[in-house]
Amino acid sequence: MSERGDRVERKGRRRPAGAASLEPAIDRTRSYRHLTNPFEPLKVFSDDHVAAIHDAAQVILETQGMRVLLPEARRRYSQGGALVDESTSMVRIDRGLVAAALASAPREITLHAKDPARHMPMYGRHVVFAPTSGPPNIMDLKRGRRAGTFEDFCNVMKLCQSYEVIHVLGGGVEPQDVPVQFRHLETTRAMLMLSDKIPFVYARGAGQIADNFELIRIAYGLTPEEFRAHPRTACVINTNSPLQLDIPMADGIINFAEAGQVLIITPFTLAGAMAPVTIAGALTLAHAEALAGLVLAQIVRPGAPVVYGSFTSNVDMKSGSPAFGTPEYVKSSFGAGQLARHIGLPWRSSNATASNTPDAQSAYESQMSLWGALLGGCNFMLHAAGWLESGLTTSYEKFMLDIEMLQMFAEVFQPLGATPADLALDAVAEVGPSGHFFGCAHTMERYRTAFYAPLVSDWRNFGQWTEAGAETATDRSHRLWQETLARFQPPARDPAVVEALDAYVQRRKAEGGAPPVS
Amino acid sequence: MSERGDRVERKGRRRPAGAASLEPAIDRTRSYRHLTNPFEPLKVFSDDHVAAIHDAAQVILETQGMRVLLPEARRRYSQGGALVDESTSMVRIDRGLVAAALASAPREITLHAKDPARHMPMYGRHVVFAPTSGPPNIMDLKRGRRAGTFEDFCNVMKLCQSYEVIHVLGGGVEPQDVPVQFRHLETTRAMLMLSDKIPFVYARGAGQIADNFELIRIAYGLTPEEFRAHPRTACVINTNSPLQLDIPMADGIINFAEAGQVLIITPFTLAGAMAPVTIAGALTLAHAEALAGLVLAQIVRPGAPVVYGSFTSNVDMKSGSPAFGTPEYVKSSFGAGQLARHIGLPWRSSNATASNTPDAQSAYESQMSLWGALLGGCNFMLHAAGWLESGLTTSYEKFMLDIEMLQMFAEVFQPLGATPADLALDAVAEVGPSGHFFGCAHTMERYRTAFYAPLVSDWRNFGQWTEAGAETATDRSHRLWQETLARFQPPARDPAVVEALDAYVQRRKAEGGAPPVS
Repeated sequence: MSERGDRVERKGRRRPAGAASLEPAIDRTRSYRHLTNPFEPLKVFSDDHVAAIHDAAQVILETQGMRVLLPEARRRYSQGGALVDESTSMVRIDRGLVAAALASAPREITLHAKDPARHMPMYGRHVVFAPTSGPPNIMDLKRGRRAGTFEDFCNVMKLCQSYEVIHVLGGGVEPQDVPVQFRHLETTRAMLMLSDKIPFVYARGAGQIADNFELIRIAYGLTPEEFRAHPRTACVINTNSPLQLDIPMADGIINFAEAGQVLIITPFTLAGAMAPVTIAGALTLAHAEALAGLVLAQIVRPGAPVVYGSFTSNVDMKSGSPAFGTPEYVKSSFGAGQLARHIGLPWRSSNATASNTPDAQSAYESQMSLWGALLGGCNFMLHAAGWLESGLTTSYEKFMLDIEMLQMFAEVFQPLGATPADLALDAVAEVGPSGHFFGCAHTMERYRTAFYAPLVSDWRNFGQWTEAGAETATDRSHRLWQETLARFQPPARDPAVVEALDAYVQRRKAEGGAPPVS
Repeated sequence: MSERGDRVERKGRRRPAGAASLEPAIDRTRSYRHLTNPFEPLKVFSDDHVAAIHDAAQVILETQGMRVLLPEARRRYSQGGALVDESTSMVRIDRGLVAAALASAPREITLHAKDPARHMPMYGRHVVFAPTSGPPNIMDLKRGRRAGTFEDFCNVMKLCQSYEVIHVLGGGVEPQDVPVQFRHLETTRAMLMLSDKIPFVYARGAGQIADNFELIRIAYGLTPEEFRAHPRTACVINTNSPLQLDIPMADGIINFAEAGQVLIITPFTLAGAMAPVTIAGALTLAHAEALAGLVLAQIVRPGAPVVYGSFTSNVDMKSGSPAFGTPEYVKSSFGAGQLARHIGLPWRSSNATASNTPDAQSAYESQMSLWGALLGGCNFMLHAAGWLESGLTTSYEKFMLDIEMLQMFAEVFQPLGATPADLALDAVAEVGPSGHFFGCAHTMERYRTAFYAPLVSDWRNFGQWTEAGAETATDRSHRLWQETLARFQPPARDPAVVEALDAYVQRRKAEGGAPPVS
């Protein structure tokens, strides 16, 4: 009966009038720039099971192998010691090659920004958040769902720059109004102009990759050697599950590895569709494919930075529809984290949902994804904000809901004080039985930084909330992203650098750009 | 680019037409009846910090004590060895008394139902879910928020009975159309008629408690001695934080302890209002109050079953409004779980939100609460379904959203298979590169039980979802609770028992019932 929020009012303990100075005044966002997860990762498999999956994946690679569609990649695999059957394009990889690749792959990867304060370590207990990447559509509450545009792309980058809890950029949304051969030029330039966070690019052929690297090199004022000396950007390599590596992806591994840039090798394995119906089976297949990608990268350049990506979920067996943020997704996340730690690579996961709209389902599926990934020990979270509709849409409102959730996790990661002053015996003695702590010295010294102040959540009572229009969290998110864009200020840029970037883009467009490879 | 849900369609792997038999057919709900949490509880404090909090709480009880408003309770404390100052009603409790109480309190509590298959162990890794308890208001999408009625109370009980993931009943919603002196008679009878799950009652004075026990005894066909031989029901005791135990709560401890029924002693401590602004301080105060209640229960009857309840959250320092499902709530949950395990008692937590409507905020705050509680090692989760608006409203739609989330957790708790058959090397060999697993033998043998089939979540693609009316999860929940009520069948009841219950209620009403004590 007494577990009701109005008890604080009924008991006369609501903060006295005139105490408006209790508004939290400290900017907590700076502490979101580098996150460390204090929790021991959870496990779904015994150590023996993890070893058995690692072994089974190697059996797949030894006996069956991967179909590799790019001849140059088959040539590299062959030179590196794999067995290539040119008639079937199958590449078999023995466990010695896997062991050598695991020995040469770096355990610790730090993405380098222009400003060292924005460097992002992604290993051990470090956690990095990057936004939605790849959806062709954009959605907002007023205009509904439509094809993504360059303006939308830029808006997503501005939102990313505005919230410190986003650490690395992402593809945001596909700007379908930009011709495909110029799209990488426009999007990478926009990332570099609108944000000082680490740019994220796609592997859509050597031409686009070279352009992206050049734009980053120009923006940072680096020589080609300096550019290659550190990881400056990352891309995702999706195998074509089951057991196939297609042309742009193989090409991406080769070009990123040669340049020492980060490969996030992520088999997209939906159990029951492109992977076995058992989660352990789907993870075994995904592990085999990730190892195959790792081996190619290490053959190309021993020491090339590779992140172990996992994206294992299930389909609805009734309809064949994909599902995300499911119980199976949570368990596959815990299991994938165990596999990543078993082989010693940083681990990438995702904040995913199958909901078609930024509603309660999108929130609980995202929460399941986030807890699964973060308690599984995730180092790099792609699609951390804005991903909706199984990745077919970027939602402005979902972006804001996700920022709220990410900030809450950033706060959960902060340690709890437990000094004698934190235990507050003096305050308890001062306040006494049935008193209140609103005005006591212990509170006054700490209230400004004591608690997370939410972006989206509305904690007003029902009367105040109703009078103010009875908005849902999605309604409030709609206002918030617009307010954020309205006050956006791009980071300062050296005019000479801007000019150089513009000149490069103009020249390459005049030359015809670089069509995506498929 | 390829991390999109339509990839399963684009690649031609959507399940072939005519395979409609792939609909999951196995009823998974039976496995939700008894839940075991496989995960090692998370920690926010070192063992030293936990010991320091336990020590500081005892310092509070030794030096300051609790104000106890019921003279009979002060008399019991005094007889048990506490130092009572009758002029201030303060009761000081030394650590020897605490140690004795901890020694006599049972470590393992099992709630007994009439049907042994519905007995509910709540200790160790066992997890028990009970619904919302106490809100005065009810809300649904069509009729909005209004005062709770007896019809609403019965509806909530019917919903509880309909979903196996609810294990113990709860107060549901206050039936404000039933006079307070008769309310306990009507609600307890309704629980016993509409459900075969364990009833949950309130401690609102000795008269009501005696009636509730009698009704349960009659319904189960037990002698008074048989009734008292096992825990048959539970109530929540909220201290009046800080440091006060009021009359009905002290009376509840005495009467429940004497009858060997379960006391869930739960200080409701909102950091910054009725508790120190630091989470460690709020937990220290809550721990002291819970120990004070435990000591009284063990003085009354050594071995009385007591659950360590925690409900520590924070207020919004701007407005004084309570907040739930916050980062501070998550960390206080982990910390409270550590304290419960330190003293060896079962631990109770809650699924809480401050949202005024069953929207995305209500879902992400509930998820934060659920993960905080469950990964903190919670044994008994009150308010697991239906709680909204900081406990002022029970929402039908939120109830269904919560059932979906609870079922998802029940599934997360199920172990993942990792046998050679689960690893599925044969299926991978059978399907081969770029094939699909929809029809392979490995899938056909397992698809019926492979994945959780959701209640509320809609995984259809955007076109199908739009054509079907573009409902949000909250809209679907609105349909679902109505469909569930429409098909509800109460459990069979012996007419003689029904008659006896009715006769008891009629007699007690004729006698004037039992007004709540305050």
